Amino acid sequence: MFSQLRIHIEKIVPLSDDEFEHISSFFTYKKFKKHQFLIQEGELVNNNYFVLKGLLKLVYTDDTAKEHIVGFAMEDWWETDFQAFYKQTNASMSLECVEDTEVLCLSLEDYRKLCTSFPKLEHFFLEKAYLGFISAQQRIISSMTVGIKERYEQLVKKYPSLIQRVPKSLIAAYLGVSRETLSRIS
Amino acid sequence: MFSQLRIHIEKIVPLSDDEFEHISSFFTYKKFKKHQFLIQEGELVNNNYFVLKGLLKLVYTDDTAKEHIVGFAMEDWWETDFQAFYKQTNASMSLECVEDTEVLCLSLEDYRKLCTSFPKLEHFFLEKAYLGFISAQQRIISSMTVGIKERYEQLVKKYPSLIQRVPKSLIAAYLGVSRETLSRIS
Repeated sequence: MFSQLRIHIEKIVPLSDDEFEHISSFFTYKKFKKHQFLIQEGELVNNNYFVLKGLLKLVYTDDTAKEHIVGFAMEDWWETDFQAFYKQTNASMSLECVEDTEVLCLSLEDYRKLCTSFPKLEHFFLEKAYLGFISAQQRIISSMTVGIKERYEQLVKKYPSLIQRVPKSLIAAYLGVSRETLSRIS
Repeated sequence: MFSQLRIHIEKIVPLSDDEFEHISSFFTYKKFKKHQFLIQEGELVNNNYFVLKGLLKLVYTDDTAKEHIVGFAMEDWWETDFQAFYKQTNASMSLECVEDTEVLCLSLEDYRKLCTSFPKLEHFFLEKAYLGFISAQQRIISSMTVGIKERYEQLVKKYPSLIQRVPKSLIAAYLGVSRETLSRIS
């Protein structure tokens, strides 16, 4: 299971066997069933999660109890409530399994130790953070400038395998439209 | 002018005099007049900009020539078309002065050299990247979950000095509403 993490990290920084052995000792393997929560809104966020297998949804629930999907995460994606994780505050979102899911968990303390002892890992996380930022900025621009049909088509084009696996009701909650509206355009 | 950069970096990582002298040698000072462009849509993006003084707007222009404000940047903020900068592609946005503006410029090549030679700087940029990502994610959540009046109030609360300096028409273009709609709620 750790070889998947190694291949993922080595897409950005090469590692020796010894380095990877040390790095992998900071991660903990966990398995969750569909509908289980990795993060519950209002609780402390202990980990950043690297998805080995499965599918997660990051959900913000508004005052009227309506669920808004902030993001999905599947194989080789990192997901957590980043604000709560880095600032060690209570989660404002929940992270729930859409499918049975296996993850590698990295605590904030271990993340900081890893970055301090391995500048290479800091470089890896910096590259991932920029990609995350750019992707979030693209989503903001898209939501400001294009209609819902085009946003759906962009999503299909960018993440074809995600669309196959995610129920339409969740895609609608990600795009911020009703299930009925999504049916008309997809 | 470089002391401002030092104070800014030292909020996250301490630096010796020698370290800072070396770091500052990678930055170039530039001064722009109101309405001048630091980045033109369609052109290569040479720099990431640290704002010493002034105010910038990052603008995405859609197919109907309508301007959408992706972000503002004032004193001590970093701004560029990050996607175009990191991937060295042509800009999809423009960066323009709302006021006369002074910046320190950092090229991608120098940014990479700095990160490689100073792991401390890589740590600094990683912290800034996470803050940028968290802020973008908060904006996505806000746009999905709260009305325009509340989004305006959040903006006033988060950046009171920005609201004082930015013309209402630009705030409207940032929030994605007409100038008239903004007048009714603000």
